[in-house]
Amino acid sequence: MSLFEKHEALLSKAIDALHQRTFYAAFAEHPAPSIYGETADADGLARFKAWLGKKFDALKQDQPSGWIGEEESPYLQEPLKITYPSFTPASLITRSQKAFQSWRKTKATDRAGLLIESLDRIKSRFFEIAYATMHTTGQGYMMAFQASGPHAADRALEAIAAGYNELRRLPSTAVWDKPMGKFNIKLDKEWRAVPKGISLVIGCSTFPTWNSVTGIYGSLMTGNTVIVKPHPGAILPIAIFVAEIQRVLAEHGFDPNTCQLAVDSFNATITRQLAEDPQVKLIDYTGNSKFGTYLEALTGKTVFTEKTGVNSVILHSTDDIDKATANLAFSINLYSGQMCTAPQNFYIPESGISTPAGNISFDDFAGKLVAQINGLVDNPKAGPFVLGAVQNKKTAERVAAAEKLPGKVWLKSRTFENPMFKTARVATPVLVELDASKKEIYSEELFGPIALLIKTKNVDQSISLARDLAIEHGAISCAAYTTDPAVREKIADEMSLAATPVSFNLTGGIYMNQNAAFSDFHATGGNPAGNASFTNPDYVNRRFTWVGHREPAKI
Amino acid sequence: MSLFEKHEALLSKAIDALHQRTFYAAFAEHPAPSIYGETADADGLARFKAWLGKKFDALKQDQPSGWIGEEESPYLQEPLKITYPSFTPASLITRSQKAFQSWRKTKATDRAGLLIESLDRIKSRFFEIAYATMHTTGQGYMMAFQASGPHAADRALEAIAAGYNELRRLPSTAVWDKPMGKFNIKLDKEWRAVPKGISLVIGCSTFPTWNSVTGIYGSLMTGNTVIVKPHPGAILPIAIFVAEIQRVLAEHGFDPNTCQLAVDSFNATITRQLAEDPQVKLIDYTGNSKFGTYLEALTGKTVFTEKTGVNSVILHSTDDIDKATANLAFSINLYSGQMCTAPQNFYIPESGISTPAGNISFDDFAGKLVAQINGLVDNPKAGPFVLGAVQNKKTAERVAAAEKLPGKVWLKSRTFENPMFKTARVATPVLVELDASKKEIYSEELFGPIALLIKTKNVDQSISLARDLAIEHGAISCAAYTTDPAVREKIADEMSLAATPVSFNLTGGIYMNQNAAFSDFHATGGNPAGNASFTNPDYVNRRFTWVGHREPAKI
Repeated sequence: MSLFEKHEALLSKAIDALHQRTFYAAFAEHPAPSIYGETADADGLARFKAWLGKKFDALKQDQPSGWIGEEESPYLQEPLKITYPSFTPASLITRSQKAFQSWRKTKATDRAGLLIESLDRIKSRFFEIAYATMHTTGQGYMMAFQASGPHAADRALEAIAAGYNELRRLPSTAVWDKPMGKFNIKLDKEWRAVPKGISLVIGCSTFPTWNSVTGIYGSLMTGNTVIVKPHPGAILPIAIFVAEIQRVLAEHGFDPNTCQLAVDSFNATITRQLAEDPQVKLIDYTGNSKFGTYLEALTGKTVFTEKTGVNSVILHSTDDIDKATANLAFSINLYSGQMCTAPQNFYIPESGISTPAGNISFDDFAGKLVAQINGLVDNPKAGPFVLGAVQNKKTAERVAAAEKLPGKVWLKSRTFENPMFKTARVATPVLVELDASKKEIYSEELFGPIALLIKTKNVDQSISLARDLAIEHGAISCAAYTTDPAVREKIADEMSLAATPVSFNLTGGIYMNQNAAFSDFHATGGNPAGNASFTNPDYVNRRFTWVGHREPAKI
Repeated sequence: MSLFEKHEALLSKAIDALHQRTFYAAFAEHPAPSIYGETADADGLARFKAWLGKKFDALKQDQPSGWIGEEESPYLQEPLKITYPSFTPASLITRSQKAFQSWRKTKATDRAGLLIESLDRIKSRFFEIAYATMHTTGQGYMMAFQASGPHAADRALEAIAAGYNELRRLPSTAVWDKPMGKFNIKLDKEWRAVPKGISLVIGCSTFPTWNSVTGIYGSLMTGNTVIVKPHPGAILPIAIFVAEIQRVLAEHGFDPNTCQLAVDSFNATITRQLAEDPQVKLIDYTGNSKFGTYLEALTGKTVFTEKTGVNSVILHSTDDIDKATANLAFSINLYSGQMCTAPQNFYIPESGISTPAGNISFDDFAGKLVAQINGLVDNPKAGPFVLGAVQNKKTAERVAAAEKLPGKVWLKSRTFENPMFKTARVATPVLVELDASKKEIYSEELFGPIALLIKTKNVDQSISLARDLAIEHGAISCAAYTTDPAVREKIADEMSLAATPVSFNLTGGIYMNQNAAFSDFHATGGNPAGNASFTNPDYVNRRFTWVGHREPAKI
């Protein structure tokens, strides 16, 4: 049985899910022993610990020019001392070019089979990847497991399914038979989906696998070879993915350099050199806007970016103010606001928020939000695990500086004790009230656990501020609370024009930060927060070119 | 019956054709009285003549700031003296923005119905458009009828079908029901295809409708408003299209400014001003590479370009050298080489071309090609009509200069008499032999009836030259003659990597210059000749953004 046959049913389910957009998950998100095995967690932790201080020797990339690695655990605030093989950009490119010549000719079914097989194997390493993610990004255990493991694998499968589906969109051959009156012109036509070449996937420090696997698997599925350039601060989680991909490739007689890991260090990055190489035709990037905009402007490349944005919450009216604030408080606390989908600007009309129990004033709302945030932070069974740790020192500094913003500080950031990691770098959310006139302050992304409460004249001003900020500075998510259908439609319509998806009236266990594979697009590509979307048809279509040849039909 | 219901069967046939890619044409390409009516030709000529010296007052665009027009007939070498209403860029943008607010909310079915209805009406003006095309572009009658009429309408229908099809790709709503163990999270989701905004379509002087209608109809179908900026030298053909679109819109209660004509003059072009306006989100362009590259670099826009390239012919072996050279001679003569798909570089191995009747040497081939070109030029019933006239004086100058290229001139360009237009600007092809080492000369596009015979070491060198030129300078078409399956596959594969479609072994009534709607992509978007392709999924997908909203399901 070929790998394609082995995984065909899964692929076909994934393609259906892509079209139906109802709930679908191929990988269980709960780290339950009943699903993953009784010893899976402990084994994963042991495997993670075994890498510490060692060479990561699981890659099939020969003759490195050196061994480097500077990862640090935000929980321990000390280096992991894992080193990875390093290579010159020139040698990475040469190996990728060589691998391209055979990979591009590999059948789409074979590529799909190999790639899904790699995900199947990665499944057995979800716990190891979870601990690697915790100790590079600072994510809490549950998020680290879910986002870097099953959710990333689902997104990867989604990209495989989308790529496979697009490759099958056109017939590979057709007979074109044109009546000309007295005779027919008959041509044999064929169409080839030609991969673009070398694909560079540039990772970020907060979601090292989730944000990179769509580009990796999307490019591989469509016949491109891939060079994965992780953030120097978060290598191990994606290194495990690449190692498993290489293992499957090698075992089945393919060149493991089809997907290479390209590790660099903070002071000697190789990203520009790789990105500017004329042989690199595709670039996937997650990170700051400045570098993203530089990449987008490179000529002769197809570039997919997820950059930064400012996410808004529009408050108008709600059936249950306590559930609404609880939901928002969770969103603010989750991974200490270090998600690209985290809320930053809360627009509250000066007249307050209407509820069945009467009007909630601006100050009432602020007070309730503070109480909900504190309630979660101070719950020792939840707070430390929801907040996790702060990946980057600069984020912690930004949080401290936020208290000096020109407005009432409703809640100061503070530290707390993580029962498992006494030395963790932590910061609870800071909440500052700002007048709507202070647009220059709140139109900037303040990455981290920083929430701004902005007093507006009315909901119309709230909507237009949220819309304009998204159009000018980008946005990846938006939340809104309203019980008025006309206001709801106005928000839905205006935020659509800003290419920003809106989560309405969320309460309970679903949050504006969360995007589900096979159903939610992640980012839209329609505003400055990025030019791409996981995983719409463009996301895979633009990785190859349709070329049609023709010839008079043989009689 | 709604317009959608009226045209639904046609739309659905077009969508099928898009997927099947077998022969399909909704509009008959033959200008036969039996199809278009006994008086259609004479009526069309009369309607065309009626515009001469007059104001083109058929547009529904109020309060022009002036009336301008500088078109000249290449057949008469005198001005048509037709003037068109002119508008400031600011007023065009303001009107387009206003129209956008209602057009974007118009249902896809209604848009499709209105747009196909406009094509249905344009059908009754194909002959008028044909004469308008002849006397602006210099195309021969048959090409002017086909390319600007039925073929353009087929391409427009193709863009409508592709756009409609992409808009239906996702469900507009779904219930997302996620099992969480003890309970389910149930969300109502909806997806909106949000048009990008104002679309600017910049026309060219040689194919004023064929190259513009895909952008116009593709943008309109996906909910964008359109500003059509024709080349100042070729306005009337596309003005008739726009007038019919506006008439259908107005008759059905829509804002005619949904599709505006933006005429300018040679010395006061408004293209940059329109293109750089932040409200213009989409740009379609056909024309020279320099301006196209400037447009592609504009930030915050989605830009579709068809620029220039160098098309190659690879000669290796053939079953019938006479039929092959006859076919190529026709391709060189057709519209005096003023097609973006016309051949320029002919690569012939120094060892010659093998045929069943023995080897044909380089010189034999050159001689045969000269004879075939002359045979066609000197046939008074065919030559003048195939060659047409030369649109631009600069093309005629370029042809004259080509005789001074450093190589043997196998055929000099000359004039001939067009029996209907004594004063036509004409030039027959010039054929120059060049050594393969003179790459700096033949890697440039020499627009017009200029063919270069390049002597190569062998077919491998021919292939690598054709491939490298396409990769470096772009190519839209390629022809190859070989009877050897291995050579054929090598050409198909290598030219695929240069994103260039190859027509193999064409003889008889089909030419490398011709691309058929619903089956051939026009350009691939994969080399410097342009970043777009008529009409692949990207061509319409990139005109709108998917935005998904969600909300807890009502219980």
